[in-house]
Amino acid sequence: MSSSDIFIGETIGTAILILLGGGVCAAVTLKASKARNAGWLAITFGWGFAVLTAVYTSAPLSGAHLNPAVTLALAIKDKDFSNLPVYWGGQLLGAMIGATLVWVAYYGQFHAHLTDKEIVGGPGAQATEAKAVEAQETGAGPVLGIFSTGPEIRNVVQNLLTEIIGTVVLVLAVLTQGLNDKGNGLGTIGALITALVVVGIGLSLGGPTGYAINPARDLGPRIVHALLPLPNKGGSDWSYAWIPVVGPLIGAAIAAGIYNVAFA
Amino acid sequence: MSSSDIFIGETIGTAILILLGGGVCAAVTLKASKARNAGWLAITFGWGFAVLTAVYTSAPLSGAHLNPAVTLALAIKDKDFSNLPVYWGGQLLGAMIGATLVWVAYYGQFHAHLTDKEIVGGPGAQATEAKAVEAQETGAGPVLGIFSTGPEIRNVVQNLLTEIIGTVVLVLAVLTQGLNDKGNGLGTIGALITALVVVGIGLSLGGPTGYAINPARDLGPRIVHALLPLPNKGGSDWSYAWIPVVGPLIGAAIAAGIYNVAFA
Amino acid sequence: MSSSDIFIGETIGTAILILLGGGVCAAVTLKASKARNAGWLAITFGWGFAVLTAVYTSAPLSGAHLNPAVTLALAIKDKDFSNLPVYWGGQLLGAMIGATLVWVAYYGQFHAHLTDKEIVGGPGAQATEAKAVEAQETGAGPVLGIFSTGPEIRNVVQNLLTEIIGTVVLVLAVLTQGLNDKGNGLGTIGALITALVVVGIGLSLGGPTGYAINPARDLGPRIVHALLPLPNKGGSDWSYAWIPVVGPLIGAAIAAGIYNVAFA
Amino acid sequence: MSSSDIFIGETIGTAILILLGGGVCAAVTLKASKARNAGWLAITFGWGFAVLTAVYTSAPLSGAHLNPAVTLALAIKDKDFSNLPVYWGGQLLGAMIGATLVWVAYYGQFHAHLTDKEIVGGPGAQATEAKAVEAQETGAGPVLGIFSTGPEIRNVVQNLLTEIIGTVVLVLAVLTQGLNDKGNGLGTIGALITALVVVGIGLSLGGPTGYAINPARDLGPRIVHALLPLPNKGGSDWSYAWIPVVGPLIGAAIAAGIYNVAFA
Repeated sequence: MSSSDIFIGETIGTAILILLGGGVCAAVTLKASKARNAGWLAITFGWGFAVLTAVYTSAPLSGAHLNPAVTLALAIKDKDFSNLPVYWGGQLLGAMIGATLVWVAYYGQFHAHLTDKEIVGGPGAQATEAKAVEAQETGAGPVLGIFSTGPEIRNVVQNLLTEIIGTVVLVLAVLTQGLNDKGNGLGTIGALITALVVVGIGLSLGGPTGYAINPARDLGPRIVHALLPLPNKGGSDWSYAWIPVVGPLIGAAIAAGIYNVAFA
Repeated sequence: MSSSDIFIGETIGTAILILLGGGVCAAVTLKASKARNAGWLAITFGWGFAVLTAVYTSAPLSGAHLNPAVTLALAIKDKDFSNLPVYWGGQLLGAMIGATLVWVAYYGQFHAHLTDKEIVGGPGAQATEAKAVEAQETGAGPVLGIFSTGPEIRNVVQNLLTEIIGTVVLVLAVLTQGLNDKGNGLGTIGALITALVVVGIGLSLGGPTGYAINPARDLGPRIVHALLPLPNKGGSDWSYAWIPVVGPLIGAAIAAGIYNVAFA
Repeated sequence: MSSSDIFIGETIGTAILILLGGGVCAAVTLKASKARNAGWLAITFGWGFAVLTAVYTSAPLSGAHLNPAVTLALAIKDKDFSNLPVYWGGQLLGAMIGATLVWVAYYGQFHAHLTDKEIVGGPGAQATEAKAVEAQETGAGPVLGIFSTGPEIRNVVQNLLTEIIGTVVLVLAVLTQGLNDKGNGLGTIGALITALVVVGIGLSLGGPTGYAINPARDLGPRIVHALLPLPNKGGSDWSYAWIPVVGPLIGAAIAAGIYNVAFA
Repeated sequence: MSSSDIFIGETIGTAILILLGGGVCAAVTLKASKARNAGWLAITFGWGFAVLTAVYTSAPLSGAHLNPAVTLALAIKDKDFSNLPVYWGGQLLGAMIGATLVWVAYYGQFHAHLTDKEIVGGPGAQATEAKAVEAQETGAGPVLGIFSTGPEIRNVVQNLLTEIIGTVVLVLAVLTQGLNDKGNGLGTIGALITALVVVGIGLSLGGPTGYAINPARDLGPRIVHALLPLPNKGGSDWSYAWIPVVGPLIGAAIAAGIYNVAFA
């Protein structure tokens, strides 16, 4: 694979991943969406099929890492870090493009939601207003949740451990794929199994922090949230932003270590 | 593939697609259906497995486009537009047959729903009546939603963009299938992945407009809605009808362009 | 395949199909079940994975028809009716064994449900009692629904048409499998696709009649319902029993005809 | 496969199985989890994708039994019990590691839940307190349910039969895999089908006892529940503990017998 194929593949793939992944959060969260309040199962399947679509589409170009943690783990496993910057660059750019496309696709919904007095405050909605103010202060409001993850209970050690554990599971599944599919490539059953593994991690380990398990998935959209001209959007919760970056990278290193000891 | 195989395959396949796709909307919407109010997840999985069944059944005959946008994209990619009219004709005819079969399968449910005073108006149901009148005037009532899509917020630019974005994702996945499956054909894992991609697009991008992402899926059933002798059915919302036709075709052209530049 | 392999395979397979299919209805319906009120999506996925498990397990022995309508369609397609009685016999026996095993697995739940005064009547539950009496008179109560299907709106023509349409879709997918999988057999992706097609038919066409689409699936458990010593069980609704037998057989014949004209 | 590969593979695989399986129960049960009250469908899909991830990851090392009942059935089928202790040892150790990791990932949620006066008792929550006391006395409270299974209706004969029936279905599907996949190994479609079979067993037969169908899945986490320093955790319900151990082993022996008579 050439560097340009890698860069283009990761950019397209991660853009699709975040467009569909952020999209399902917008669909379930925002006013005037047909999917409003469709629930946690919709969110986890939505993210899973985002992985499926993104991996399937970009596999022929770049091998579909779409996640800096996956790239790091494969680099450790193969002892070859030369392509790491190209992968990471494409992933971050793609994540930012994807988050911007969510905003385009849900433009009217974002506006209706964020200017609704019942939702963001105003006379007759005191309790809601208090909540909105709190959300703006902490940056953990639901609209930020369309872009980036946030913890239910803010605790650096637990939040980091939860992200590490989730990423270890994801990366072990990705690394063993090479042993399982005997060279058929991701573009058949491998893409589907990876997607359903992500649904499983979401259902099982998403409760405390919202399962970033991917630094680009969290950082790229958070940057876009900070830049977009959304009314009443609140802060971007930068104090939490390092956890979904560092946690998954630690998890990837641990998973690569387990793989090299137990499987290689 | 002969022209008659293409026409018959697309007619049968698109009829199954709309029978099951429109069917799940009827199942979730109509009075006296066991699935009433089963929710957005039921609708998106129902449409996805409609794609699975339709693609699987028609793939041996016509290659299972079942969508004028897919046919357009493949024609642009292959620079061969000769079969396009046969595909499009079969798709539109099939969509009309499928929508008619939904009406047959749910005949009693349509009648019970549309003649229910609580639902379409009458003494003691003022608020509902007002809604029903509005639905009849705008043509965006829930029974039309069994046939065709409609926006939650009516905005030509956003509605068009949402349909374009959804179709770009769909068509990129369809086009990369040839690179992924190495000639195994749609009738194995390819049909399943395409179906789950459609579930994903529905969950993630269906919120604003109901994800037509297929001109035949929207236009054929809308014509049938206009023709069927349903009581109190309201208008067919023809002012919106061009968006789910034009948007997907633009999306297909964009996706084919991306494919030819990045993947070919 | 020998006749004894066919008979044993169909008996085991259809027993698993009805054990899991009837089981999910018991799980969602009965008092003191962890899955009570889990909803329509649970029922349709439960039946789909019942098909998956049953087809996968019995495919090596009998080819996993598990449905008299499928056997009829394959006999018409191949112009060979010699094994039809063995298949049909195994299917009916298996369905009766499966329905009995549902009763064993949910023994305490059946008893708790059917002797609950709130559910089947008693002082302080007048409205519910009225409903229970009606259910006993019509035989269409929810406990019969664990065994057999019943219509929401009783109309011979529509009920028959709905079952015919659903079965045509199922059988077309089964018949085209031979064209799609190129001899890999049901025991790989074919079993999964068939299962998800059944989920799709349930979601989309199950609303009016509960999608029997299989004479053995309906008749075998109805006989068991009539025989089991369940308290307050109500009638077995024999006046409806012919529709989910005759409808699917007509649908199978129509699908085989379509196949022979369009695909063969 | 060497003994050490088997032991390591089963330990890693069963740890992932219980981490994700127990994780989804924690996610749905505990206060301050994003997935709280996500419902039975989330639990059954969560367990199914736990199986998928665990089988896929450990298949290259140990063949991914991850269940003493599966190991027993394969030993009976092959008349070779030599590796049974290594498999069972790895499975029990892995299950205990997995349950401990659930506690780590949901540390704050466990604490918030078990010290919440509304949930475990206190002034103004009398009804809830009574329930919590009962839960602590019987050991069948919802927090134990994150670790181990328990019956809705306590009846030794029925509970045992339900676990036996569920395990027979699971083991028959596992044993027929060798006939179906023609040597492709678990790491492709086999892992997915096994996972969806487990979703199906959960949906259909999980209502009465919570479908252990695996002695290690129940016993390992129960030991961890007894050892962990959780506040107000209640008893570990040891009087029930033998049923989800003995029932699945009986079911495995029955399934192996059926296989040897009908399929071999």
